[in-house]
Amino acid sequence: MSKIEQLVQTLKEQEADAMWVSNPINIFYFTGYKSEPHERLFALLVRADGQQILFCPQLEVEEVKASPFKGDIIGYLDTENPFDKHQETYEKLLIEENHLTVQRYHALQKAFSVQTFKAADPVIRTLRNVKTVDEIETLRHAANLADKCMEIGVAFLKEGVTEREVVNHIENEIKKYGVNEMSFDTMVLFGDHAAAPHGTPGDRQLKNNEYVLFDLGVIYNHYCSDITRTVAFGQPDAKAQEIYNIVLKAEQEAIQHIKPGVTISELDDIARGIITEAGYGEYFPHRLGHGLGLEAHEYQDISSTNENPLEVGMVLTIEPGIYVPNVAGVRIEDDILVTENGYESLSGYAK
Amino acid sequence: MSKIEQLVQTLKEQEADAMWVSNPINIFYFTGYKSEPHERLFALLVRADGQQILFCPQLEVEEVKASPFKGDIIGYLDTENPFDKHQETYEKLLIEENHLTVQRYHALQKAFSVQTFKAADPVIRTLRNVKTVDEIETLRHAANLADKCMEIGVAFLKEGVTEREVVNHIENEIKKYGVNEMSFDTMVLFGDHAAAPHGTPGDRQLKNNEYVLFDLGVIYNHYCSDITRTVAFGQPDAKAQEIYNIVLKAEQEAIQHIKPGVTISELDDIARGIITEAGYGEYFPHRLGHGLGLEAHEYQDISSTNENPLEVGMVLTIEPGIYVPNVAGVRIEDDILVTENGYESLSGYAK
Repeated sequence: MSKIEQLVQTLKEQEADAMWVSNPINIFYFTGYKSEPHERLFALLVRADGQQILFCPQLEVEEVKASPFKGDIIGYLDTENPFDKHQETYEKLLIEENHLTVQRYHALQKAFSVQTFKAADPVIRTLRNVKTVDEIETLRHAANLADKCMEIGVAFLKEGVTEREVVNHIENEIKKYGVNEMSFDTMVLFGDHAAAPHGTPGDRQLKNNEYVLFDLGVIYNHYCSDITRTVAFGQPDAKAQEIYNIVLKAEQEAIQHIKPGVTISELDDIARGIITEAGYGEYFPHRLGHGLGLEAHEYQDISSTNENPLEVGMVLTIEPGIYVPNVAGVRIEDDILVTENGYESLSGYAK
Repeated sequence: MSKIEQLVQTLKEQEADAMWVSNPINIFYFTGYKSEPHERLFALLVRADGQQILFCPQLEVEEVKASPFKGDIIGYLDTENPFDKHQETYEKLLIEENHLTVQRYHALQKAFSVQTFKAADPVIRTLRNVKTVDEIETLRHAANLADKCMEIGVAFLKEGVTEREVVNHIENEIKKYGVNEMSFDTMVLFGDHAAAPHGTPGDRQLKNNEYVLFDLGVIYNHYCSDITRTVAFGQPDAKAQEIYNIVLKAEQEAIQHIKPGVTISELDDIARGIITEAGYGEYFPHRLGHGLGLEAHEYQDISSTNENPLEVGMVLTIEPGIYVPNVAGVRIEDDILVTENGYESLSGYAK
């Protein structure tokens, strides 16, 4: 069943008349057409009868026609009200409550005489949670490019270089591989600077015998990667090395536990257990990971409170960390695909 | 009166109990603290009694304390419900209807027993519409850096260079001036490629005797610039030069008309009149400009339907263009401050 057919199925089950998709990422997911016209209206309407209608600025109509989207198009000028061009009643409408603004909510209510709104978020996130073969291929490529960023960054390390210089070098060099956008602000932090929870790369210079934390990812064909490596420059002191080894063990054991049917919270428990047992529990203040796809952080949380089971086709990050102020900050993160028999690590840079 | 005092004044006039500010840009505007914790709750509550409360993730509390914000802080862990930490009733609450999601709207209704919601958007955009002395100083600096980008880009032009190479060169070189972020994707388009309304820089190579369109801006200290120049490389043909001269005249005459009290639509009329009279009206398909500040595109529209008057302290772009497919695309854009006696152009690169 295609993605759209699954939406139509949901509409029938919920006895809803239509779904209004307004998040540009979700619109891309369903249509293959990417746009972000900001305050201008841009939305996909999927009706229970299967009809799909894309509302977009008139300027974009030709681009939509050239895209994979095969439904109807309603283009409008800035001087026109797009709703005037589609005078219909949808008594029960599904909306993305986590994206739609209050302003648009009132506008939809009026335009389509909506009586009841229900959340479309759960069905969309359930679909996006399990990746298709094409999506996995793209995510694998994005992860390989993140590995390449690591190679570029590590080769550039030298005493006296600043964090900001390393970031710039990586972001410039990776463009040669066709990357025009990182999936988030590249993070490169030296030594104990990596122990600040929200550290920002700056003018700190690299000294011998400290760790360098890289947290980075690229956007490849709309899909994101997100990996972290903590790399020794020279020989960090014994305490920092001890922390590194604990984080590595926590990451590896959590990953090795991945297979369909395992409860997500178990993964967090395994990693947190190892870190806590080593006496660093209070220095691991965040969840173990998150879903990865069209967004660098997406559904689901890989956390201690998530009782959902792993499913074949999920792609997630596993990223335990220990941050001891004035000592060291270590995090290690890979992008993992859940397979029928276990898992495949999409990222592969040495650790 | 401070910005917060003006909000409190509005709350009293509207007999509202409080305002819930959720747009991170507006929160920065009122507090001087910038954050974007995505799905996590981050909001400023301003009460009619003048109390200000910032809700933020616990991880950020220390950063907030180090910021200019002097109100109360409610930090929360991922495992906590932030609303449990502020059990109050606000019967009439002002919200940003253009930003708040339906999900948060329902959550606020429940948490604070809200009876009536009203829009906070108008008062906030009216405040942001008129810049303070400090904001103007920052915007001037951002515009100067955009001029510097033009210098860098023009010096790099040579036969055979690609659009993408020019973009990369500008974005790399401007980092040496302390710029870490552009205010939008830098646009560099060669020859008739600039006539595509949504052109994206690519592998097209520069040929002799064509125009190069640059549309770019930087973020300096949170404030944006946004300028466009169309620069001759060699000697473009007579038709393209004719188009250039018409656009330049339209831009200059609209700018020279700027002073407090002038109706905004008049500016659009002047520029559009010149272009239409020259026979190119149908090739100028967009508004004349927009407001500029913390966002590259912000309130107000500089368009034919905006009957608001210009006010001292407004900063806006003026950017007429003519796009004739297979012939040429020309746009010229400056960042203009409305002054007591007229205007000051913050951007100054030759045209």
